[in-house]
Amino acid sequence: MAKNKTPTQFEKLIEGMLKGDRLSLARLISRVENAEPDSAGIIERLYKHTGHAQIWGITGPPGAGKSTIVDGLITRLRASGKSVAVVAVDPSSPFSGGAILGDRIRMQRHAIDKGVYIRSFGTRGKRGGLSRSTREVLLLLDAAGFDVLIIETAGVGQTELDILQVAQTVVVILVPESGDYVQVMKAGLMEIAGIFVVNKCDRPEADQLVRELNLMISMGPHHNGWITPVTKTEATREQGLDDLFKTIFEHQKFLSESGKRFEIQKEFLKSQLAEILIEKLQLSIDNSLNSMAGKKIIDLLIQRKNDPYSAAKKLYLMIKKG
Amino acid sequence: MAKNKTPTQFEKLIEGMLKGDRLSLARLISRVENAEPDSAGIIERLYKHTGHAQIWGITGPPGAGKSTIVDGLITRLRASGKSVAVVAVDPSSPFSGGAILGDRIRMQRHAIDKGVYIRSFGTRGKRGGLSRSTREVLLLLDAAGFDVLIIETAGVGQTELDILQVAQTVVVILVPESGDYVQVMKAGLMEIAGIFVVNKCDRPEADQLVRELNLMISMGPHHNGWITPVTKTEATREQGLDDLFKTIFEHQKFLSESGKRFEIQKEFLKSQLAEILIEKLQLSIDNSLNSMAGKKIIDLLIQRKNDPYSAAKKLYLMIKKG
Repeated sequence: MAKNKTPTQFEKLIEGMLKGDRLSLARLISRVENAEPDSAGIIERLYKHTGHAQIWGITGPPGAGKSTIVDGLITRLRASGKSVAVVAVDPSSPFSGGAILGDRIRMQRHAIDKGVYIRSFGTRGKRGGLSRSTREVLLLLDAAGFDVLIIETAGVGQTELDILQVAQTVVVILVPESGDYVQVMKAGLMEIAGIFVVNKCDRPEADQLVRELNLMISMGPHHNGWITPVTKTEATREQGLDDLFKTIFEHQKFLSESGKRFEIQKEFLKSQLAEILIEKLQLSIDNSLNSMAGKKIIDLLIQRKNDPYSAAKKLYLMIKKG
Repeated sequence: MAKNKTPTQFEKLIEGMLKGDRLSLARLISRVENAEPDSAGIIERLYKHTGHAQIWGITGPPGAGKSTIVDGLITRLRASGKSVAVVAVDPSSPFSGGAILGDRIRMQRHAIDKGVYIRSFGTRGKRGGLSRSTREVLLLLDAAGFDVLIIETAGVGQTELDILQVAQTVVVILVPESGDYVQVMKAGLMEIAGIFVVNKCDRPEADQLVRELNLMISMGPHHNGWITPVTKTEATREQGLDDLFKTIFEHQKFLSESGKRFEIQKEFLKSQLAEILIEKLQLSIDNSLNSMAGKKIIDLLIQRKNDPYSAAKKLYLMIKKG
């Protein structure tokens, strides 16, 4: 279908999107997400309209209350006149598209508000390209004029941490029973967290977790003068959300004043370029491995008539020439 | 140091290792693990001695009892006259080297047995190359003549699943309270698991977990006729370990008879080649991004005078020429 679009139709979608048409935006996002042939063209065309949005990341283990907190942040952003787009990435879910995840339901009450856009992504088995497509979807939403972009990752693991590299302010949401999660993710969390939230702070073990986090923060890497704060919330009762909202903007102010915002933008671009290149080169690698010559090389390896490094050298030359 | 070794010294280590000298083996492993300049040479030289060992993978969330079960498997392998090497990979740990992780201690009682070799790996921040170096360490241990190689991954996440791709038989160890872990890892676990173990099966919720797993298995992908069994153990009391041991060998037999072993070997080699190539190309990408030309390209992107895809095309040509 996409291949049959005439340039005029393509341009119509772009223009529609830039004028605030949500259907055009949704169609462009799908094409970028599915890496359709014209997705590079979409980014090429829209890139000059980007660079204005703040990017926030929200992560934490399942059941920590991420969606309730995102919901509360959306309400506060709207109250202060800011538009917001939420991209919920769930690497463990095969589902993509509209707001179809169960815990999206709460956010549905923003559905008729033109200043709020919510979209969920699964992986559909394309894990490799997930952070590339997340980056590109953020660029689209930025070009569409949203003031704040929120990436929410549901789950645990390196993939989620990789995705969050694109966020300027990462909020890590924990609950008293998140001990295992903190243990496993420790080094990664300390590196990305701009703010810790201890949610469900009415539970007795909450203060213990706050103390542990503060200890880890005091021993961890320093972020150019930002000491990661630990904010307590009880999101279902709206407790602590104003505080969190204020703290996020303080972190954003810190990023601007310390020059860190500029650094993050550079890293964002470097990673984006590296990912585009890796995908191009990965394709060349796969092609060379699946070619007749590649199959012969693997047969020789199985028979132990060659070794992997000598074989890789041959393939490397094939790729450089090809 | 390594660079000053004469070819004779290098060859001495190789010959020592092939004759069963553990110190030579340990030194070669360190060099491969640290990707020292001669590590490609080590693999080139030793590759023809590989292809004999069975490769088992053991994974599961922290506290599931992985080490106790590995310990029990080692005892049973030794009783049946087989030698075994254990590679424990902990992507969340910065530690590498000898058996230094806390839960290794139990295994220490095998330390004076020449038929058992145990080694722990952390990441030291080199996550990218972790599955490459794991593969190469397995090749070394295979060449050293061990009958069975066990990879144990401690932790949760995609990195662990990637590492386990190299194993022929993957045993996933769970305990009744592993619900969250199963939820998050579901798709990935179903894909790699050859055998599920429900450990600490004396707990009341164990049967519930067994039922859930069997349901997931019945709905999940089929592995060419192998229906993933769920084995119950109570490892600290040695219950169920004989059963598990038998089941692993049944799976190995299935792999041989179904032709799956040959397929896995091909995939192992393909992934290994792809990883060597990606590392080579990643280096070229980093160099191009950090070159004067690369910095200029990023500046133009920040000023929105160019877009990422056009920039990537330029860099791609630089890499192909360079």
